[in-house]
Amino acid sequence: RARALHSVGLVGAPFSKGQPRDGVEKGPDLIRGAGLVEKLRGQGCAVKDYGNVDFDDVSDDSPVGKVRRPRTVGLANQRLADAVKAIKEDGYVSVMLGGDHSLAIGSILGHAASQKGLSVVWVDAHADINTPLTTPTGNIHGQPLSYLIKELHCKIPAVPGLSWIKPCVSADDIVYIGLRDLDPGEHYILKSLGIKAYSMTEVDRLGIAKVMEETCEHMFSRGKKPIHLSYDIDAIDPTVTPATGTPVVGGLTYREGIYITEVIHQTGLLSALDMVEVNPKRGKTDDEIKSTVDTAVDVVLGCFGRTREGSHPPNYSVPQPSKMS
Amino acid sequence: RARALHSVGLVGAPFSKGQPRDGVEKGPDLIRGAGLVEKLRGQGCAVKDYGNVDFDDVSDDSPVGKVRRPRTVGLANQRLADAVKAIKEDGYVSVMLGGDHSLAIGSILGHAASQKGLSVVWVDAHADINTPLTTPTGNIHGQPLSYLIKELHCKIPAVPGLSWIKPCVSADDIVYIGLRDLDPGEHYILKSLGIKAYSMTEVDRLGIAKVMEETCEHMFSRGKKPIHLSYDIDAIDPTVTPATGTPVVGGLTYREGIYITEVIHQTGLLSALDMVEVNPKRGKTDDEIKSTVDTAVDVVLGCFGRTREGSHPPNYSVPQPSKMS
Amino acid sequence: RARALHSVGLVGAPFSKGQPRDGVEKGPDLIRGAGLVEKLRGQGCAVKDYGNVDFDDVSDDSPVGKVRRPRTVGLANQRLADAVKAIKEDGYVSVMLGGDHSLAIGSILGHAASQKGLSVVWVDAHADINTPLTTPTGNIHGQPLSYLIKELHCKIPAVPGLSWIKPCVSADDIVYIGLRDLDPGEHYILKSLGIKAYSMTEVDRLGIAKVMEETCEHMFSRGKKPIHLSYDIDAIDPTVTPATGTPVVGGLTYREGIYITEVIHQTGLLSALDMVEVNPKRGKTDDEIKSTVDTAVDVVLGCFGRTREGSHPPNYSVPQPSKMS
Ligand SMILES: [Mn+2]
Ligand SMILES: [Mn+2]
Ligand SMILES: [Mn+2]
Ligand SMILES: [Mn+2]
Ligand SMILES: [Mn+2]
Ligand SMILES: [Mn+2]
Repeated sequence: RARALHSVGLVGAPFSKGQPRDGVEKGPDLIRGAGLVEKLRGQGCAVKDYGNVDFDDVSDDSPVGKVRRPRTVGLANQRLADAVKAIKEDGYVSVMLGGDHSLAIGSILGHAASQKGLSVVWVDAHADINTPLTTPTGNIHGQPLSYLIKELHCKIPAVPGLSWIKPCVSADDIVYIGLRDLDPGEHYILKSLGIKAYSMTEVDRLGIAKVMEETCEHMFSRGKKPIHLSYDIDAIDPTVTPATGTPVVGGLTYREGIYITEVIHQTGLLSALDMVEVNPKRGKTDDEIKSTVDTAVDVVLGCFGRTREGSHPPNYSVPQPSKMS
Repeated sequence: RARALHSVGLVGAPFSKGQPRDGVEKGPDLIRGAGLVEKLRGQGCAVKDYGNVDFDDVSDDSPVGKVRRPRTVGLANQRLADAVKAIKEDGYVSVMLGGDHSLAIGSILGHAASQKGLSVVWVDAHADINTPLTTPTGNIHGQPLSYLIKELHCKIPAVPGLSWIKPCVSADDIVYIGLRDLDPGEHYILKSLGIKAYSMTEVDRLGIAKVMEETCEHMFSRGKKPIHLSYDIDAIDPTVTPATGTPVVGGLTYREGIYITEVIHQTGLLSALDMVEVNPKRGKTDDEIKSTVDTAVDVVLGCFGRTREGSHPPNYSVPQPSKMS
Repeated sequence: RARALHSVGLVGAPFSKGQPRDGVEKGPDLIRGAGLVEKLRGQGCAVKDYGNVDFDDVSDDSPVGKVRRPRTVGLANQRLADAVKAIKEDGYVSVMLGGDHSLAIGSILGHAASQKGLSVVWVDAHADINTPLTTPTGNIHGQPLSYLIKELHCKIPAVPGLSWIKPCVSADDIVYIGLRDLDPGEHYILKSLGIKAYSMTEVDRLGIAKVMEETCEHMFSRGKKPIHLSYDIDAIDPTVTPATGTPVVGGLTYREGIYITEVIHQTGLLSALDMVEVNPKRGKTDDEIKSTVDTAVDVVLGCFGRTREGSHPPNYSVPQPSKMS
């Protein structure tokens, strides 16, 4: 049951109903197709691929207030929560490949079911914290954190399909990185709950190294809890990762995006990872899709110990010359 | 007469005769066409659009020494100065959309006519400080500051069409950001007048946050004067803003370009803005033009309070659930 | 014999046999064709172009162990070493235009022949320090430093064509910048010899300014030795310099690449420069080739005193107006 930090339990979540754009359900298989499992093994990880979760559409899933497809999204996240919980009970670090970011509901719930308390690091251009009553679009991929935060529970109406969700994260245990496109309600919530947030302005002001230092300090000041890293590929700049549903100019560089994962790995506390919002249909060329998918792979590899300075096996030694011919 | 910091008086200056390339006169209408006014209003600004200044060509405008089209440029800037002065007298923060950078002559003169003294922040790949006698090209968009700086006045010959200009800025009240392509005379002038300048080398060495901190310190050390921000889109890297007449590699990132505006806004002292040198005819594709124009819009929005961390109205509150159905 | 810091002795090395990809032998003439000599003279350098070294293929150059074309590469580097030694004896700063990075063997040996001891700054995505026994590919452009480092000599078997090489650099006198793709043996060697290395992780953590500050401190702590700067164009990001044989994502920005050269110039100790691995056949478009070649030119110019803040001749003065007409 106690496995190494480098034991990866992989689960695909080919789901797109938390937002309106077709294609994001292809993320898991594309990311696998770029060699994720082989590369993880190549860097010394034990990997178990749990396959893809099966999702069903709920018929008669008409909007509730503004919230779109609440029953379909709710059911999908119940399934995903079960899958992640099983992975955690098997002792792996869970890696969920989305799919859209509404899947963080199930991923975090499943993760939380196996731990006393979590820190959540949310790397995203967006805050994804609209409530069913503040959401301008109704898309649940812009709302997942609102259902999960204890301090927000009183603001969440009972929405059919979603009312089973029990909040499991404290506002103090969340850190945002990469924000640059927030709705007014989201900004209000962040400020009123005092959630730690490093928007691109702070990344520019402090630099990514200081941002990560402070991120760790903030998390550790509350005890060393298992970390849930929820990584939306749109946090990274659209020149690097254009194949995503809601790109926003002025994002993290590839290097900043990877640096984040190196520091998270170094904490030794990574317990679950979401890699979401890769949408090949939003890439205009094959190069755009490839750059997006390859970056998603590199983010995962960085979370599991790949370092840019290189590495060698513990028992390595340089061959001694005898004679060559 | 005393309006809020977020009262924008917009004036277009469709003028290109300060340099040889056709197309830059289309800047004002392109930037408007990208939704500038609506977006400013959407973030809470009161906007009055004063329309475009009418410019006339002066016939028989042959070069004087090396200086090209001095009478046409001089007349255009008299008109623009009047327009900006009127905007300032109406109590607005003036926003001049160029057009080429020779227009800074009129914009700064008009601005200075309504204030005791100005600080000028000049964001540009170029220093635009050649005198009529040092200019290698004769183009006046490379000379505007030379006419405006008190300490340089003795070096300025009387050029027909331009001799009406009375210098209104002290060398100590200027800060450059983004320099990377200076003529020898310009470098000599900057050094001999001791003008504060952050070339790209300094941006690399200090980081944009420290550059802006020092920029503010330098300005405030001389009292808190109204700020004239003269923003040449070619300060930003040509991969982001290629549709401009004299692109230079190694420029500011989009993020640095925006960060500058956020800090200037924060001072509460912005009194006039120039956004110049957007030239759609220099873009090779529609994407290149769009990226340039959108960035110009974002620069203006950043100057008037748009923040990447988001914002909410002062009276905002999160809706309380009753029941949904 | 004692020439100024700005005396450039240029030598081309149109050689590609240290790696398998055709095209890199065109580097020297392409870089010259982009105006290197004229630009160096334009910024005040005395330039002597020694032309291109003549290389011959050695017939029957079958692999030795994994090492490919050892006799051809060995012979080429003997010739190059002689050429660089002559340039140094003529009192110039040597500038070697490659060609592939196996040429650093000859360039550093020729340089070392005229000096008591060197510091080597190696700017590269790769460590190029595999021994003949650790190399995964056998390509010698991934091995040059292994032959040159005194402390590694005992790990180097006698390879026909290469056994004449006498190591001339101490591990302590090497600084790497830009690393992000190392083989296990290379990482082991770097760690076990304690070689100073700034991978992209350190560049992200410290910033390029601090990296260069520490680089200088490290070098100077061992006395002020002449600097050999060996600059692989693949150190810079493939979005800027794609036309190279082994591009790696996440590289130095153009600005960081230039900043390095500005600091090296400032030390006053630059004694030899390699500019290698520009391969026009690896560019997908003319723009990709041009951007790569232009950047290579800018790197060389930066090494010889070009500054982004500009410059003016020592005797410069601003022309005084009399009257113009
Ligand atoms: Mn998201
Ligand atoms: Mn997002
Ligand atoms: Mn300008
Ligand atoms: Mn300019
Ligand atoms: Mn190399
Ligand atoms: Mn390399």
